Amino acid sequence: MSKTTAGNYFEDFRLGQELVHATPRTITEGDVALYAGLYGSRFALTSGETFARGLGLERMPVDELLAFHVVFGKSVPDISLNAVANLGYAGGRFHRPVHVGDTLTATSTVIGLKPNSNGASGNVYVRTEGRNQDSEVVLDYVRWVMVRRRETVPADRLGETTIPDLPGAVPASELIAPWRVVGGYDTALAGSEFLWDDYEVGERIDHVDGVTIEESDHMLATRLYQNTAKVHFDQHAQASSKIGRRLIYGGHVISLARALTFNGLGNALSVAAINGGSHANPTFAGHTIYAWSEVLERIELPGRHNVGALRIRTVATKDHPCADVPLRGEDGRYLPHVVLDLDYTVLMPRR
Amino acid sequence: MSKTTAGNYFEDFRLGQELVHATPRTITEGDVALYAGLYGSRFALTSGETFARGLGLERMPVDELLAFHVVFGKSVPDISLNAVANLGYAGGRFHRPVHVGDTLTATSTVIGLKPNSNGASGNVYVRTEGRNQDSEVVLDYVRWVMVRRRETVPADRLGETTIPDLPGAVPASELIAPWRVVGGYDTALAGSEFLWDDYEVGERIDHVDGVTIEESDHMLATRLYQNTAKVHFDQHAQASSKIGRRLIYGGHVISLARALTFNGLGNALSVAAINGGSHANPTFAGHTIYAWSEVLERIELPGRHNVGALRIRTVATKDHPCADVPLRGEDGRYLPHVVLDLDYTVLMPRR
Amino acid sequence: MSKTTAGNYFEDFRLGQELVHATPRTITEGDVALYAGLYGSRFALTSGETFARGLGLERMPVDELLAFHVVFGKSVPDISLNAVANLGYAGGRFHRPVHVGDTLTATSTVIGLKPNSNGASGNVYVRTEGRNQDSEVVLDYVRWVMVRRRETVPADRLGETTIPDLPGAVPASELIAPWRVVGGYDTALAGSEFLWDDYEVGERIDHVDGVTIEESDHMLATRLYQNTAKVHFDQHAQASSKIGRRLIYGGHVISLARALTFNGLGNALSVAAINGGSHANPTFAGHTIYAWSEVLERIELPGRHNVGALRIRTVATKDHPCADVPLRGEDGRYLPHVVLDLDYTVLMPRR
Repeated sequence: MSKTTAGNYFEDFRLGQELVHATPRTITEGDVALYAGLYGSRFALTSGETFARGLGLERMPVDELLAFHVVFGKSVPDISLNAVANLGYAGGRFHRPVHVGDTLTATSTVIGLKPNSNGASGNVYVRTEGRNQDSEVVLDYVRWVMVRRRETVPADRLGETTIPDLPGAVPASELIAPWRVVGGYDTALAGSEFLWDDYEVGERIDHVDGVTIEESDHMLATRLYQNTAKVHFDQHAQASSKIGRRLIYGGHVISLARALTFNGLGNALSVAAINGGSHANPTFAGHTIYAWSEVLERIELPGRHNVGALRIRTVATKDHPCADVPLRGEDGRYLPHVVLDLDYTVLMPRR
Repeated sequence: MSKTTAGNYFEDFRLGQELVHATPRTITEGDVALYAGLYGSRFALTSGETFARGLGLERMPVDELLAFHVVFGKSVPDISLNAVANLGYAGGRFHRPVHVGDTLTATSTVIGLKPNSNGASGNVYVRTEGRNQDSEVVLDYVRWVMVRRRETVPADRLGETTIPDLPGAVPASELIAPWRVVGGYDTALAGSEFLWDDYEVGERIDHVDGVTIEESDHMLATRLYQNTAKVHFDQHAQASSKIGRRLIYGGHVISLARALTFNGLGNALSVAAINGGSHANPTFAGHTIYAWSEVLERIELPGRHNVGALRIRTVATKDHPCADVPLRGEDGRYLPHVVLDLDYTVLMPRR
Repeated sequence: MSKTTAGNYFEDFRLGQELVHATPRTITEGDVALYAGLYGSRFALTSGETFARGLGLERMPVDELLAFHVVFGKSVPDISLNAVANLGYAGGRFHRPVHVGDTLTATSTVIGLKPNSNGASGNVYVRTEGRNQDSEVVLDYVRWVMVRRRETVPADRLGETTIPDLPGAVPASELIAPWRVVGGYDTALAGSEFLWDDYEVGERIDHVDGVTIEESDHMLATRLYQNTAKVHFDQHAQASSKIGRRLIYGGHVISLARALTFNGLGNALSVAAINGGSHANPTFAGHTIYAWSEVLERIELPGRHNVGALRIRTVATKDHPCADVPLRGEDGRYLPHVVLDLDYTVLMPRR
């Protein structure tokens, strides 16, 4: 039975190792529609072909997060099949738009390794890159996961620790704004009258709406991304785990939260960067997701007078509306109903 | 937190007001497939490209009700986010087919206002229009909803009442039949041997089959239509409501009922008009939907000898098969298991 | 109410009878995406356009099993609406690839009839053929089902028995391999390093992973295939049946099992034949599906040096991981947790 992949364990990773991930995946109109049905996103740039053309694009781009999930999904069988926890993201950049018809592939490079002192696991840091059929990088990001060892080792055989310099927030000079505002910008069609200039650093927005997740929803999404992590799909096995439930793919919560932010950030047409993020607590079917956001930074883009960037923190919660902007308790730890703390950068038209 | 849309309240509407709705939405093959998966429709005109071409069309059109739901969905954030009830439809006309690749936008005009005497709400009547990327009207309809006031007003400050002349059934002269029967019509491929000539006014058809709705189904559909009404999505909030459950979008029931009518009305290839309709009782996940129909009118189309129209009443029920054609009780009110009473007009080949 | 189809009963079938099935169905990118979301298949040939072109194809083909389900679905209203049980498959051949844009139609020929001695039902054997818009056969297969009689007949009026010669495994000379390996074959992108030469007859593979089925999943799939069998959809009626539950379409389990086999048979890029199969026990929502496979035969294809075929038995189970390769009990009957025993032939690159 050796032809079955059991995934890599901590001892299988080496610093500098490059992993070519299976399977090439062509993005279609079908993926775009399923993404719409799964999250109900209303950002105009990825909803209406005519709107995208009005912003100087030849074709409507695919939602950045759909591309992100597809690339992420490819990395799962090689990187995180034996993960204990998905610890964080950093330095996620969207280099160029993905369009319907593009075929995405992914590779990862191991940039850090940190054995845990218990000898049973360790943290693996990778930079994952998604490319299109012309070998152009469409997105890349760093993530780190805690991965089990195949066999526990004694304290004197843990191996070297190399923690990479994690990138901070993606700087203005590296943000790509693939569209521009030509002539007027139709805020009525876009669904919000508030533009870049109207947001202030420190401003907080309760996105009000909530969406309940069902088992079918997150599994349909996660299979669409060809993400094979067992914990999302196998209730028979999960029943005898500590959790007892299927765990919802963190990216599903990210996309739900992003869709919820439309109410308050309706002109945040593109995601340009994922600066960092944590899945603070697990999400299960039956939970209702709410979100609030804080404007962390208002970024002028070099040479761009009608498009600006906002660095945003979006916090998602479960079964807890966000009027009280929940985040951490007095002990400094995430509150139990906080499920996501995402630091990312969006692009928005300026006045 | 003022950047969040809370939707319009009764006092925000003015007679003659025009509302431009967000977000432009391009209809794709993906939407068509999801619609197929959600309802299992088998009408040949919207299922097989070759069949559509055989009826003189260059391309297969998109199901009229998919286009209707997308246009309706756009109107929700502006018209019915604070609705207490969706009271009725009238004068729905399908002016021209929608095709894959079309981008739909929507606008509404307030044509009537009726304050309720309790001072807490009122009925808003709108005519909503969906247009394609060439600004051609593809469909329009009137609907009226009861909308909450932001603040209750005393009896002497209710404001004016204007009830519009509601259109009756769309007359033959306004029905558009975009396809024609050229040469023979293949009833075997279409799935029914019964043509327009075979139906009699007053005839009733029990459509026999039943379909159970799950939470995932209606939420996937309703998000696909970018319909943002909270009651469909937020179980956490609904749990503390009188209903205690997520309410299923009425249009989801309309599409399920239309798909069920294939068994008995298989050659009703297109919907040409929605003359009127009521969501008689709420539908929840777990309910099994059944339907029966009555032929209300057999309409000859001016100058069209091989296509006719049938005005149909389709009644849908929950957890109650329709052999007994249920509708109203002795008190004249809808029976508790009746969820839809729809008066619409379909097009069908003639002998 | 006579315009409603109640489906054919045993006494409606005649030997040699040809049935033209409704409804023509155009396969789109949307169907492909939904299929991906429903099963999470990762076989590279049907996932990445560039990968398909690398194998000498002009366009990426559609998964053979999606085409199979669509053709099968068409036959349901005419063949198995009154089926008691779906007894078996044989001689399923995939003659040519189906592509996005193809419109499929289906016909069946009655090739055998076997009345049951109880006078209440009988077995109907049909050969069903799916064709594309150019009338080219894309696939055909034999299946047999036990169908109820409209009215029970006494023992002396059962009618003739004709059992057809059921085809054995599709021979090498009839297997179509529409792609070829040109230059190198990228096993990293494909997701498995094991090629045809690496598999041995008798080898068994536990595919390890499990996927739990929800009601929404199988209904979405089964409606997508326009399969109208009531037992899959109508919980209200099923509640009063012996089973008490909605029964999951057997083809849904076949597709889930095929997707699971990726882990161990990752280069089995195409299904070339379905030699036989049984749905050993019913599957319900909530069940977790696992699978194991046995290599039955390693087949050289005439004149093809870089593509070979493997005849595979894949067994799927419910709520029972397959490390113990479960199949039959000591009494020779399928074990209660075995739900599928499928004998089929796949195509795989050779070294």
